Amino acid sequence: MVDTARSTAPADDVVAQTAPAPAAATDTGPIQIAGAPGAPRVDTAKLGRQLLGSWPEQRLASRELAGRPEMQRIEGQSKEEHRERVLGQLKLLVENGQVLRAFPEAQGGHDDHGGNIAGFEELVLADPSLQIKSGVQWGLFAAAILHLGTTYHHETFLPGAMNLEVPGAFAMTEIGHGSDVASVATTATYDEATQEFVIHTPFRAAWKEYLGNAAVHGKAATVFAQLITKGVNHGVHALYVPIRDDNGEFLPGIGGEDDGLKGGLNGIDNGRLHFTNVRVPRVNLLNRYGDVAEDGTYTSPIASPGRRFFTMLGTLVQGRVSLDGAAAAASAMGLAIAIKYGAERRQFTAGSDTDEEVILDYQRHQRRLLPLLATTYAAFFAHDEFLVKFDAVFSGRADSDADREDLETLAAALKPLSTWHALEALQESREACGGAGFMASNRLVGLRQDLDVYVTFEGDNNVLLQLVAKRLLTDYAKKFAKADAATVARLVASQAADRAYHGSGLRSLAQTVADFGSTARSVDHLRDAGSQRELLTDRVETMIAGVAGVLREAKGMSKADAAALFNSQQNELIEAARAHGELLQWEAFTRALDTWNASTDPGTTQVLTWLRDLFGLGLIEKHAAWYLINGRLSPQRAQSVSAYIDRLLGRLRPHAVDLVDAFGYGPEHLRATIATGIEKERQDEAREYYAQQRASGTAPLDEKVLAKAAAKAAKDAAKVAQKEAAKAAPKPTARVEK
Amino acid sequence: MVDTARSTAPADDVVAQTAPAPAAATDTGPIQIAGAPGAPRVDTAKLGRQLLGSWPEQRLASRELAGRPEMQRIEGQSKEEHRERVLGQLKLLVENGQVLRAFPEAQGGHDDHGGNIAGFEELVLADPSLQIKSGVQWGLFAAAILHLGTTYHHETFLPGAMNLEVPGAFAMTEIGHGSDVASVATTATYDEATQEFVIHTPFRAAWKEYLGNAAVHGKAATVFAQLITKGVNHGVHALYVPIRDDNGEFLPGIGGEDDGLKGGLNGIDNGRLHFTNVRVPRVNLLNRYGDVAEDGTYTSPIASPGRRFFTMLGTLVQGRVSLDGAAAAASAMGLAIAIKYGAERRQFTAGSDTDEEVILDYQRHQRRLLPLLATTYAAFFAHDEFLVKFDAVFSGRADSDADREDLETLAAALKPLSTWHALEALQESREACGGAGFMASNRLVGLRQDLDVYVTFEGDNNVLLQLVAKRLLTDYAKKFAKADAATVARLVASQAADRAYHGSGLRSLAQTVADFGSTARSVDHLRDAGSQRELLTDRVETMIAGVAGVLREAKGMSKADAAALFNSQQNELIEAARAHGELLQWEAFTRALDTWNASTDPGTTQVLTWLRDLFGLGLIEKHAAWYLINGRLSPQRAQSVSAYIDRLLGRLRPHAVDLVDAFGYGPEHLRATIATGIEKERQDEAREYYAQQRASGTAPLDEKVLAKAAAKAAKDAAKVAQKEAAKAAPKPTARVEK
Repeated sequence: MVDTARSTAPADDVVAQTAPAPAAATDTGPIQIAGAPGAPRVDTAKLGRQLLGSWPEQRLASRELAGRPEMQRIEGQSKEEHRERVLGQLKLLVENGQVLRAFPEAQGGHDDHGGNIAGFEELVLADPSLQIKSGVQWGLFAAAILHLGTTYHHETFLPGAMNLEVPGAFAMTEIGHGSDVASVATTATYDEATQEFVIHTPFRAAWKEYLGNAAVHGKAATVFAQLITKGVNHGVHALYVPIRDDNGEFLPGIGGEDDGLKGGLNGIDNGRLHFTNVRVPRVNLLNRYGDVAEDGTYTSPIASPGRRFFTMLGTLVQGRVSLDGAAAAASAMGLAIAIKYGAERRQFTAGSDTDEEVILDYQRHQRRLLPLLATTYAAFFAHDEFLVKFDAVFSGRADSDADREDLETLAAALKPLSTWHALEALQESREACGGAGFMASNRLVGLRQDLDVYVTFEGDNNVLLQLVAKRLLTDYAKKFAKADAATVARLVASQAADRAYHGSGLRSLAQTVADFGSTARSVDHLRDAGSQRELLTDRVETMIAGVAGVLREAKGMSKADAAALFNSQQNELIEAARAHGELLQWEAFTRALDTWNASTDPGTTQVLTWLRDLFGLGLIEKHAAWYLINGRLSPQRAQSVSAYIDRLLGRLRPHAVDLVDAFGYGPEHLRATIATGIEKERQDEAREYYAQQRASGTAPLDEKVLAKAAAKAAKDAAKVAQKEAAKAAPKPTARVEK
Repeated sequence: MVDTARSTAPADDVVAQTAPAPAAATDTGPIQIAGAPGAPRVDTAKLGRQLLGSWPEQRLASRELAGRPEMQRIEGQSKEEHRERVLGQLKLLVENGQVLRAFPEAQGGHDDHGGNIAGFEELVLADPSLQIKSGVQWGLFAAAILHLGTTYHHETFLPGAMNLEVPGAFAMTEIGHGSDVASVATTATYDEATQEFVIHTPFRAAWKEYLGNAAVHGKAATVFAQLITKGVNHGVHALYVPIRDDNGEFLPGIGGEDDGLKGGLNGIDNGRLHFTNVRVPRVNLLNRYGDVAEDGTYTSPIASPGRRFFTMLGTLVQGRVSLDGAAAAASAMGLAIAIKYGAERRQFTAGSDTDEEVILDYQRHQRRLLPLLATTYAAFFAHDEFLVKFDAVFSGRADSDADREDLETLAAALKPLSTWHALEALQESREACGGAGFMASNRLVGLRQDLDVYVTFEGDNNVLLQLVAKRLLTDYAKKFAKADAATVARLVASQAADRAYHGSGLRSLAQTVADFGSTARSVDHLRDAGSQRELLTDRVETMIAGVAGVLREAKGMSKADAAALFNSQQNELIEAARAHGELLQWEAFTRALDTWNASTDPGTTQVLTWLRDLFGLGLIEKHAAWYLINGRLSPQRAQSVSAYIDRLLGRLRPHAVDLVDAFGYGPEHLRATIATGIEKERQDEAREYYAQQRASGTAPLDEKVLAKAAAKAAKDAAKVAQKEAAKAAPKPTARVEK
């Protein structure tokens, strides 16, 4: 189904459009039709397989599960009903076994880390509460036992955590400390006399808070506490602590509260816990990274307390991995609903007297939805690379300290971008569907409400981006540790323009600061992948170098002054980290695009190239002020970015439905009335009604038309009357008059 | 309490800061304290009175009502319970009488239009469902009877609508037509034989949709339908149609469906209605703008069908007025909660070893919340001017066609900006409060869910902005109807820089296009109100002129080509309309600021000036790319905008709590646990605990500290050993060695 005349040569496009003129009307107007002669065709099946990523089977198996009614959310249930329903669904997941793939073979798992997460993410299609409650049980509670515990814990506690006999809470966050986990105040003090740890909550701010499974279902918890033995605090460690008996009553010394209703995810029983001198056996310390002997002696394979802490937290990175993937999936669902509806819904006549325009043909509607679609594709491709990296580390195939650090930086860069993007995509989709978008039956509002908290849990997005920024600063400092400003300037000027991807999630920070805004190149410069990469890379590197330069002044300052100086750069640092994440997404999109062959798949290659360009140029447009201020773009070129984006929107419009179909979601996944074709049916019925009325002559006349006709008739009559009058009147004779 | 040394001269500030250097660390760091010597003080009481606007008594009376528990939302109710609760609250409102102020004295009202809306908006504090259901009953259903009907209708139908004996639906929107009301398909065909109108729904897309009161409570509806008599369609008119009997059963020929659960506002029973040849008496036509005689003859005081239609719709503008005010109030509530919490919450140590930083002292936190606070102030001040204009038109004091047109343009410009702003402010507030922000008990999520639909109902925001843009284009065309491009250029170049507010909601479109980016002026240029006005005004005018120039080519084009050309400018037009709305807000803020006297109120004047500058410069920063591309700002100056914003944030930080306190909401309005001071109590308790531990010597030692000490001890010991060894070793004798 490929039209070779046009699509064998994507480069044609570059040749054909050399002038940076604003898009001509016919290029952006509502006249393109998918499948029209000369238009490229998208191979949605093949593209769909690519979007499934590196674990397609696990993903499809889980997606099939998510399509079953018994796994899905029922809108309007009370939080109590919803909580019980989701707990029941977790039991079905145990029977199915998919969600246990990551656990060791010894415990009945498959040691399959990547495939496990891939499948797990798809649960968001059924109900985000199901995804997150599963995440609490197996991705946090059981995973803490697995990754922070040793053989005893695996044998003793994992089976119950895996088969849901023991629903568990992951008790890390406290009311007083969320982002700053190292400062939690709960203590676990070793008592040599009884060989027990005493878990204690010293004050109200130290209550564990927001814990899934804590309000009702949890029977145990992995409690994070300051480990104290022999009068020394060895920092935060996790302990396995039973919290409820078989009747669901709190065990002695344990208390708690229900968090009650939340903005979403009400299928999860979040709650608070507190401990009053609760004793657990010494062996309940999850002791992989730190142990206490019978006599109270503390030992750890990691000497540095700081590195030990970050290593422990690092084993729990999978939460961020799966949020990244689930957020991308939720964005795709939202856009699939809005774009399918937008391609059918009609409102206002514009270019026709009888037929109303399809709303997706309006430029504004394209501007609202298609750039978000491009970003969703970028998030999908970046996520798969992220998942591959995660699998390499967790399988042990590539598990050096540097690998783990890179993985964490990647997580900290991608999770914020994809979760914020999901909220934006779902909100714009909801608004683009008008009142219909506000109905729970069309899913957009429910998804957005559930996804809302994804931007602050498992690492607040702003805090995560600061971690990325600090890593970027460290890399920068390493490179130029001993160089002064002049040396740096020489270094960057002499650097070759090679900007190959480094795999680590971090890119080279040495960068040519060429002002290519001053030359008069045409818009096709911007279509060049190399130019896009250069612009995006340059921005990250220049921003980081700028901040590093300012922070150099902190040397010799008091602690308070240095903190104030750092604080003055906080916003810029977060923006730089975001720019880094955007670059990673762009690189991933470009690599995914590079797997397509323009000779054998010309249509898909062409359309994906447009989509990637829309993503890349969209970023450049968003940050145009920076590029202009820093002399990277001339005003003319900056303006041509927007004009070319308008042109891309018109080109992509005919393929919009194909591009959302490629996500592969069936009606059992979207479950939105407006995405079922019902809108077109209704409009066909209306059109048929009016056509019959016109044909049968029963249509009422329109006062407006009549008024116009009457006015014309009156004017004509007046003209005739005038003529008649002129004829009848005596001809003036000049001579007589004089 | 005013410190005159600093604050008598706001101009001081301009003098003191001449260099456009980035803010120094100490200027933005977390060291300012409200009330510190030399800091200006805000007169919150006086500022609060200003924020109450032109109808303070009505507003306070309604706010008192909204503070009563029986008027408030109970989180977690089922939609059925919530619907009944809100209906009950409406009955309380009838008893109270406030909500009936706008109705004629003859019917027991007060003919007080502005005061009525002012009071009505405050209901959002109790529950947005209450505000909107009241709006359906009295602002739409009863208001349609009032404004579209005549004496018979006022006497017959208004009493029941006012006292809630007849809950009513406003049946305008259909499934197939929302924004394009003129195309609704329901028909009202006059039957001379029986002197009745026959209301009919010809197909599924013509079902009335999303109607409040339709699902359960409504007993009647004002139904908008194509009025057909003697075979001619006279366009959309409204009729009073009973829909349910006293048992709540649909009357013959009427059917409907419940819309079910929505993304918010579930205290309102939205639903669908359809009519199968339902007959109502001829006199049920609300006949102020169009009547049908017994013999079927149609008459109207407005000859043009188009003008007649817009006149009818224009009488219902109050919905947009009240959404604008309620959205501003909701933004204020959200920011009050987030800023009070942010000023108490601490996380991470930075400049101290023991005390964690207050999160509102972080630059990023200020960047997230304070610009939104500035915009909220702008929205408050703009809303009051809007309400005054509305009152002038509806009281008949200034009620020309031009006044009504201006009012509608103002509504179309301000409602989109304030409702989008509310969603942004509520979302950023929710994220800034982290997990606590996601709890229903802290109100942010519930408010956001309810406010969500404000951006698409009562006129979709994007559609409204297009109305504004068309008006701007029309005004432009009127001004330069006969001028060619060169003439226009001459005109704008010779235009004086006077840009006084025109009261109409529209500003002069002729504008100096001076390139003041090329001159090397310092940052204080940007602090000048005149410069801000010039930049904001210039952008609107230049954008409109640009689009007008492109659209000139449409002359002589086919209808389809002209539509495509217009479509190619749609996005730019909407952006221009938004820029116009932003300018209106800025002007309103500046006028409100001008009422303060720097001699008598130096502190408040200074702080409000900073806040207005933050708003104005925030807009300029947001649109910096445009200013750079169009040569209005030099790169240096554009950069100094951001640097100066950082400085303003640091200055405003100490006043942030005062600025939200000035909104005047008590704990009975905010009803957010985290805004009650509980966070500070918990932190004081924790600090006290640690202090006692240190004092009593029971605090555990820290492994990190011990490790550092041990390392130092080892190093010292090694040094000593080395010295001793050096002493003990035989001195080398050079000669021997050789």
